[in-house]
Amino acid sequence: MQRLDSSQADFAQRLEALTAWEEELNLAVNDTVREVLADVAQRGDVALLEYTARFDQLAAQTMAELEVSRDRLHESLEQIPTAQREALEAAASRIRSYHEHQVQDSWQYRDEQGNLLGQQIRPLDRAGLYVPGGKASYPSSVLMNALPAKVAGVGEIIMVVPAPGGELNPMVLAAAAIAGVDQVFTLGGAQAVGALAYGTATVPAVDKIVGPGNIYVATAKRQVFGRVGIDMIAGPSEILVICDGSTDPDWVAMDLFSQAEHDENAQAILLCPDSAYLDRVAEAIDRLLPDMNRRDIIQASLSGRGAMIKTRDLADAVAISNQLAPEHLELSVADPEQLLPDIRHAGAIFMGPYTSESLGDYCAGPNHVLPTSRSARFSSPLGVYDFQKRSSLIMCSEQGVQTLGEVASVLAHGESLQAHARSAELRLKK
Amino acid sequence: MQRLDSSQADFAQRLEALTAWEEELNLAVNDTVREVLADVAQRGDVALLEYTARFDQLAAQTMAELEVSRDRLHESLEQIPTAQREALEAAASRIRSYHEHQVQDSWQYRDEQGNLLGQQIRPLDRAGLYVPGGKASYPSSVLMNALPAKVAGVGEIIMVVPAPGGELNPMVLAAAAIAGVDQVFTLGGAQAVGALAYGTATVPAVDKIVGPGNIYVATAKRQVFGRVGIDMIAGPSEILVICDGSTDPDWVAMDLFSQAEHDENAQAILLCPDSAYLDRVAEAIDRLLPDMNRRDIIQASLSGRGAMIKTRDLADAVAISNQLAPEHLELSVADPEQLLPDIRHAGAIFMGPYTSESLGDYCAGPNHVLPTSRSARFSSPLGVYDFQKRSSLIMCSEQGVQTLGEVASVLAHGESLQAHARSAELRLKK
Repeated sequence: MQRLDSSQADFAQRLEALTAWEEELNLAVNDTVREVLADVAQRGDVALLEYTARFDQLAAQTMAELEVSRDRLHESLEQIPTAQREALEAAASRIRSYHEHQVQDSWQYRDEQGNLLGQQIRPLDRAGLYVPGGKASYPSSVLMNALPAKVAGVGEIIMVVPAPGGELNPMVLAAAAIAGVDQVFTLGGAQAVGALAYGTATVPAVDKIVGPGNIYVATAKRQVFGRVGIDMIAGPSEILVICDGSTDPDWVAMDLFSQAEHDENAQAILLCPDSAYLDRVAEAIDRLLPDMNRRDIIQASLSGRGAMIKTRDLADAVAISNQLAPEHLELSVADPEQLLPDIRHAGAIFMGPYTSESLGDYCAGPNHVLPTSRSARFSSPLGVYDFQKRSSLIMCSEQGVQTLGEVASVLAHGESLQAHARSAELRLKK
Repeated sequence: MQRLDSSQADFAQRLEALTAWEEELNLAVNDTVREVLADVAQRGDVALLEYTARFDQLAAQTMAELEVSRDRLHESLEQIPTAQREALEAAASRIRSYHEHQVQDSWQYRDEQGNLLGQQIRPLDRAGLYVPGGKASYPSSVLMNALPAKVAGVGEIIMVVPAPGGELNPMVLAAAAIAGVDQVFTLGGAQAVGALAYGTATVPAVDKIVGPGNIYVATAKRQVFGRVGIDMIAGPSEILVICDGSTDPDWVAMDLFSQAEHDENAQAILLCPDSAYLDRVAEAIDRLLPDMNRRDIIQASLSGRGAMIKTRDLADAVAISNQLAPEHLELSVADPEQLLPDIRHAGAIFMGPYTSESLGDYCAGPNHVLPTSRSARFSSPLGVYDFQKRSSLIMCSEQGVQTLGEVASVLAHGESLQAHARSAELRLKK
């Protein structure tokens, strides 16, 4: 794992090099996805059956075979081990109650001229949830994406999950049952995104598509954006840990591992003003790594994109963190609340030594879908607000328009928009 | 103007054909923009000076010549006619006070185990505002884009506006002075977007870019999305008017004109259950059109994309409106508050006969940057919330982690993420 020191003359460039990440533009994928989407838009279910046979080795004659019944979802919930079911239910309950704090309400007021102004807030009619299949099939992701939509009051949630060779993860189906997903189709890839965006005879068109996926899914989401809403396109996952040197080094080492085990491009960075403490964490890493199932991925991630950075002090660590705007930020310090006001950008902030990122990934309550690649500078965790939208309200009184109409008229003429001016002027008393 | 009747057998197809709009994919523009952006990222100010000389016929030797000083902004404010200045100030004041209702505050709570959960809300550090130059140079757009950022508490607002041949609109500069824009550069096109996204020696890199522009600007915003945030990419502007037949037909005709005068692709649709009333509006249109300065554009828009639709009743009109999710919706009826609860999708709702859309375009208070092309199904007017972002907060107590750690451990093992499980388990008391 690379060691840096923020007092090095070339630290800024080293940090930049360490964290640089450009999604490569893959023109071949772009073209393939464009074809698949156009085909699904055109031929609907027929195209879905063909692509599913070709890409997912799942031969079905009818779309009915690609729908997972609600009975099957509930059967999965009955069949998984009790500990798993209870853990999913506990997580769902906490996620639900956290997200209930995010619900926004419509508001109105009247100004001094009696004009009504306000904002009406409504849920989306229908949301689509993409869930990856195969190896990276995560029940926690079903809960984190579906529950905010449910809390927002979305009318229907349509889930798609590929079933390569017919195989489905029972915990994923159980999570869908718990979250109250309305319909599930075993579809994946760009064709699944196309089905949700355009609708087919069988798959209802949705208003927004959320959920993670591979490069075909991400590219398809980008291409249908505008016709439907999408959540963010995630880059590699990242953690930044700020330590004051008081946390058990084993805990910190394992927190870095938990990020690194996602994939080789995941990034884990540790900041601490105490260089002897960094040595202790390095020792813990060496000692704990051999026992990890995913040690090869962890090692590749830590040596390729990880770093330990000695900072001048905690304030210096916070400044570096603000520059990187990490997806996950652990404040593994004795008094995290003291640092909090200075944190300007982070997807989620895990405060104090007991709060491992993994608690937030599964069950603390906040969402685990978070802005990556410095986008926490301008975006937020997935939330209820992503499934609600606003309409402005204006109702002018006859008295109110006498003032507002004059102002609008002057500005409209100033922009040479005569009809805008006239439509205001017609409402003025002569 | 086309006349339709919602009871026609093929009404659904006709409505679909009328409102269909696909942004054509322009590969040549895509490629040009990609080159310009890469060049600005690479060569910075030198590239900006070259492109500005080439595309805007504005030859400058140094970037200092392309910066508009704060003194010049304030001079413009002094020099424009008093009526214009007062109108801009009145509009700004109303826009500011409406948007203050949108400010969101951080929140926290503790659960029964003493874990702290919450959301910390912060403004963006720096926003970029693109303002078109030349003919379509709109001071109202400066107010509508800059003021929500100011109200959100954004640290700095950087505005770019092309000055073809050196020409600048004094009302635009005056609006920038009123809105408190921090820096103005006379830059336009993809190069201006590139400067804001990547930063140069002179132009500071921003976190989000908002504001309208031509296809080069829109394409550039799409391409830099991810590195920075962007607002929505707008399609043609639209109005849908629901009438009960009680509003002066001249008023309604002029409201349709005010939409149609924007450009030939703008769309104006009138819904009313009373076919005799539609005749009266048609008569008003014929009578009023010849006196309009932009009659050619209005005529092209109304005959190409406009329609009057006789509906069964007002409920039928509301159902059609929900399907179209219009950018601007006028409820030009005697009792608009009665219809309001049934409106599911609209960018802005103008209630009652006195509330012309143009009041909202300029000075009522709500934003005039609104979702187009049915995207009101899933998105909202530009607002303070576009310039604030959230960080999740989690602080587990030692007691809390004993419960949460168990749940996280079960779920992490279920997803074969051993390090996630271990980092939770390490915090459990033995």
